[in-house]
Amino acid sequence: MNSPAFDHNLYAGCAAQIISHTRELAAKGFTPATAGNFSIRMGPEHAAITISGKDKGHLTEADIMVVNMANEPVATHHRPSAEAALHTHLYRRFPDVGAVLHTHSPTQTIAGLLHADEGRVRLRGFELFKALRGHTTHETEFDLPVVPNSQDMDELTASVDVVLTQPNTWGYLIAGHGLYAWGRDISEARRHLDAFEFLLGCELEMRRLRA
Amino acid sequence: MNSPAFDHNLYAGCAAQIISHTRELAAKGFTPATAGNFSIRMGPEHAAITISGKDKGHLTEADIMVVNMANEPVATHHRPSAEAALHTHLYRRFPDVGAVLHTHSPTQTIAGLLHADEGRVRLRGFELFKALRGHTTHETEFDLPVVPNSQDMDELTASVDVVLTQPNTWGYLIAGHGLYAWGRDISEARRHLDAFEFLLGCELEMRRLRA
Amino acid sequence: MNSPAFDHNLYAGCAAQIISHTRELAAKGFTPATAGNFSIRMGPEHAAITISGKDKGHLTEADIMVVNMANEPVATHHRPSAEAALHTHLYRRFPDVGAVLHTHSPTQTIAGLLHADEGRVRLRGFELFKALRGHTTHETEFDLPVVPNSQDMDELTASVDVVLTQPNTWGYLIAGHGLYAWGRDISEARRHLDAFEFLLGCELEMRRLRA
Amino acid sequence: MNSPAFDHNLYAGCAAQIISHTRELAAKGFTPATAGNFSIRMGPEHAAITISGKDKGHLTEADIMVVNMANEPVATHHRPSAEAALHTHLYRRFPDVGAVLHTHSPTQTIAGLLHADEGRVRLRGFELFKALRGHTTHETEFDLPVVPNSQDMDELTASVDVVLTQPNTWGYLIAGHGLYAWGRDISEARRHLDAFEFLLGCELEMRRLRA
Repeated sequence: MNSPAFDHNLYAGCAAQIISHTRELAAKGFTPATAGNFSIRMGPEHAAITISGKDKGHLTEADIMVVNMANEPVATHHRPSAEAALHTHLYRRFPDVGAVLHTHSPTQTIAGLLHADEGRVRLRGFELFKALRGHTTHETEFDLPVVPNSQDMDELTASVDVVLTQPNTWGYLIAGHGLYAWGRDISEARRHLDAFEFLLGCELEMRRLRA
Repeated sequence: MNSPAFDHNLYAGCAAQIISHTRELAAKGFTPATAGNFSIRMGPEHAAITISGKDKGHLTEADIMVVNMANEPVATHHRPSAEAALHTHLYRRFPDVGAVLHTHSPTQTIAGLLHADEGRVRLRGFELFKALRGHTTHETEFDLPVVPNSQDMDELTASVDVVLTQPNTWGYLIAGHGLYAWGRDISEARRHLDAFEFLLGCELEMRRLRA
Repeated sequence: MNSPAFDHNLYAGCAAQIISHTRELAAKGFTPATAGNFSIRMGPEHAAITISGKDKGHLTEADIMVVNMANEPVATHHRPSAEAALHTHLYRRFPDVGAVLHTHSPTQTIAGLLHADEGRVRLRGFELFKALRGHTTHETEFDLPVVPNSQDMDELTASVDVVLTQPNTWGYLIAGHGLYAWGRDISEARRHLDAFEFLLGCELEMRRLRA
Repeated sequence: MNSPAFDHNLYAGCAAQIISHTRELAAKGFTPATAGNFSIRMGPEHAAITISGKDKGHLTEADIMVVNMANEPVATHHRPSAEAALHTHLYRRFPDVGAVLHTHSPTQTIAGLLHADEGRVRLRGFELFKALRGHTTHETEFDLPVVPNSQDMDELTASVDVVLTQPNTWGYLIAGHGLYAWGRDISEARRHLDAFEFLLGCELEMRRLRA
């Protein structure tokens, strides 16, 4: 008898958490027109990830598949989204990362476009830096990396790989495409995502008001 | 015995879908003060369409009528809204269009006014172009047509007809009046509408921040 | 036996409508920190009106009293808000007005401050003018009057009285204080209010984007 | 038999009120990434206060502890947030203060940063001043104090102490960190908080539109 491809109880728990978070993120307008993708690591070999093209505000377990760390589907006929490569890249690079959330809010899309040439959004003086694991004060600068968008996933993954030089970065923007945020589990990834959305929103607002 | 004017089961299904979408669109502020109209094609001859002057957030089946492709009411004493002509124009011109959604958000109203002289809103570099059927990359320009408003429906329909020159356009703005978006079915039309709202919102924001 | 001071069934119906609308208006952020007041005419002599200082998002029938057209309380120990005078002023001046809604959104507050010197907000070219009774085209100007604020109700009422010179105006702003909107019944008053909020929001946005 | 450390029925009532308000404040986006803290005074010696690091939109009684006026935990193993010191500072300084709410909205964060050098946000001419206890007219100036942020609670408390010179101030901003608002009970504190958020939002908007 073959052992099962993955632990189905673990999968069911991951799917339920993804569904719960995506419902909230869709309600905030972070997943327009089926954009966005969300995953939770299932051990060293697998991740549960949302299937492409689904309305992220109304997911069911059928909309979540399992991939391995080479982006191959596991025990399903569904094909993973091209963007699954960006999730598995983070799982392979950082063994302690347990969840990756990719959203597409207006703030995230615009902040990436405006800072694409600089290659980063430089933030200063926010108390909410302390919501990012490893950061303990507002009296510092925090650089959120920005990479150019590409339809070639190998090119895009390579661009991302070179900008992740600082510890405790927890996110990056793709210009005109949105934000990737991660953490040790989905609650932490979500806290990081919510913090980045807030900080980027403040930064854009300061830019409007200081001009 | 007369055959029925239309398939009432099909009508009931179309009405239910319209009601479901309009409830969400009203909650987003896209149907202020009873503005907006929404339709689903019922075969080559008919469309189910919202009746004028109703609160689009609280529709019932009684608020949805059937028209033929000459804008005449079918099996009802209700008169269609003048704007029904813009729906049937699209159904006659594009046989594969299955649903038309007209909304009136602040972003759509303002974007049309600001770009009325240019006759289009030119968008560049957004990943979300891929939410529009037939578009596969961000590395392109997308022109959303803008026509001047008119209380003369023949004049307005003629203005619209001449700007629909490119395939896979899926929408147009009427200056100071809002957006028309369509697709092969109401889910696709909705995805296109949500994508346009997002893209126009980003464009207006970029304009605010770059000045 | 004394005849009752007013028809209690009519009162119950008016209270229920006020409660329904204020719940929605509070959810939109139009009644911050207990601001706002709302009334429905009960015949030529009376109006049902919200009591001052109540959380407008959570009203009950106990939060709605009856006043006469001289602003005196009827069959209650509650004292009317000073602003009841602005409601009864409209009921006395316009016999066909059936409901008056006073809200305090950021847009309404700011638009009044910015246009206080001009004494009006001039709007042009919006399709949504047609949501205001008596207006049939976008190809026109619409002036929404603005009066300076005052803590002296007689002074404020007199200021309002002189600016209501045009038919089908349906609303006015008090600078830094918000909007009064009315109609033949509460549904029409609400449609007018929603239209003014939308139009003023577009106007402020156009101002931001054209500077 | 030891007398209980505090009245558990009073505690349960305070916890329920905190939970009710934080649910609403979280829904408005005022508690991003677990930011914010909220307390109600329990007599001269104690306060019920939210525990650090919890999702403020989904609190339960287990997420609320009791501290004494020296910031020491009472009858619990939980440690208070460092920011509890800012709550007890207000309770010790103003015997009539019954509740303190600390939120972290984008408007509050930005307003503090923009006005940090001035040490205050000067507001003029808003009717909503009357939502602040002791204020009866719009024809006045209101200064909301702004203090610089610090990770040293003694330094921060001392900064706050020196700016609270005017009666009926009811709030202060910490630059890049958010708003502290208070009142005689939590309903009044909430009304003050909602009024400050509204007034600061209008002030930032006026700044955008007048430049």
